[in-house]
Amino acid sequence: MKAGKLYGVSVGPGDPELMTIKAVRIIRQADVIAIPHGKKESCAAYQIALQAVPEIEKKECLMISMPMTKDSSLLKESRLNGAKKILSVLVEGKDVALLTLGDISIYSTGWYLYCKTRELSRELPNGAEGELIGGVPSFCAAAQRLERALICGEEELHILPASYSAEQIEQGLLLPGVKVLMKAGKQISAVKKLIQDKNLPVCAVSRCGMEGEKVYWSAEEIEEDAGYYLLILVG
Amino acid sequence: MKAGKLYGVSVGPGDPELMTIKAVRIIRQADVIAIPHGKKESCAAYQIALQAVPEIEKKECLMISMPMTKDSSLLKESRLNGAKKILSVLVEGKDVALLTLGDISIYSTGWYLYCKTRELSRELPNGAEGELIGGVPSFCAAAQRLERALICGEEELHILPASYSAEQIEQGLLLPGVKVLMKAGKQISAVKKLIQDKNLPVCAVSRCGMEGEKVYWSAEEIEEDAGYYLLILVG
Repeated sequence: MKAGKLYGVSVGPGDPELMTIKAVRIIRQADVIAIPHGKKESCAAYQIALQAVPEIEKKECLMISMPMTKDSSLLKESRLNGAKKILSVLVEGKDVALLTLGDISIYSTGWYLYCKTRELSRELPNGAEGELIGGVPSFCAAAQRLERALICGEEELHILPASYSAEQIEQGLLLPGVKVLMKAGKQISAVKKLIQDKNLPVCAVSRCGMEGEKVYWSAEEIEEDAGYYLLILVG
Repeated sequence: MKAGKLYGVSVGPGDPELMTIKAVRIIRQADVIAIPHGKKESCAAYQIALQAVPEIEKKECLMISMPMTKDSSLLKESRLNGAKKILSVLVEGKDVALLTLGDISIYSTGWYLYCKTRELSRELPNGAEGELIGGVPSFCAAAQRLERALICGEEELHILPASYSAEQIEQGLLLPGVKVLMKAGKQISAVKKLIQDKNLPVCAVSRCGMEGEKVYWSAEEIEEDAGYYLLILVG
């Protein structure tokens, strides 16, 4: 039997209307939905897709719990198990839409599952094909919310992960142009201090396009509990 | 009379199916379409929108010629004239959808027109409101075409304009993580040399999602005439 096809579907940053026409079509056509999360109810990507394509509720859904950890062996194991789960459905000839928040190429948990499933699939005689569907990244949506451009002319844009080392953030803030600090929620105190010490121009959005969205026009305004979806623009 | 609303609409990187649901709705509802280009036929953003929303052909279209120059006074003048043209329609109470390729927050000619129109509008007693609609940026679409992620985990992503100084590019290539060189077409010889001298891993896409799309898996493969829409990923 011919294997199904795996789609890595980006559902955009939060507003269901920011899903692409292609994402909606693929999700509608897919036999099975997969999410990198143990529960539909608390999976942001699923909830976004559900608003645009309510009929997904009737589709088979693979819920793949991914631990929020930096322990690499634990991560490896859960990705492998998740990929096996997806593959078992693909080999039945079913097409799978793996949903992911924002864009799948940018800090996406879904990417690891997509990648591992494709890897396992290539070892099979009748492996599943794959296709990635792009989406609007959170930093573009944040810029639109703030009614500003990210970069013009000769400017540079630097996307930095703000949930790792303070040193990395400090180095990144020295770069010319505009800096986007992603997922700054956990390290917010350290990040705020770095920005304030350097007296840098800052604006930020948390939960952009989602329920509870908040906009901040200075480092001082950013709340300590602004959360996981906080995105800070510097410069 | 209440002024119309100005929408800065990102139409994505090339594939009309990568337009967002919101972009399609706004374009459909708008009274007037505006393009940062002198001709519909050679305006990539218009041609993308036309495929998704064929009825725009019947709408009034403001064609705003923007010179391809780095002469700042010439640029300023054409932006001002373009903004006045858009504003004259907005004050008639018409909603305008200003189309722009990729995402309007990233190196977009449309952004300048949007920004200038909003600026002029704020000086009027009944100024026009504005809203930006995000889109899939070209570098996300290129990553999907290459079936790869841009950044995972602690990695950084650096978006660099490759049509200005070779020194800027050289400095940029020293940064950790993944580098995206945008609009490298004009400086392709210099860029190729820099990449080859440093022996950096490279892949590239030109005209991603458009007619004549081409994929390159090494610096050597990239043709000298790969053109304006060439996007290079390093790392």
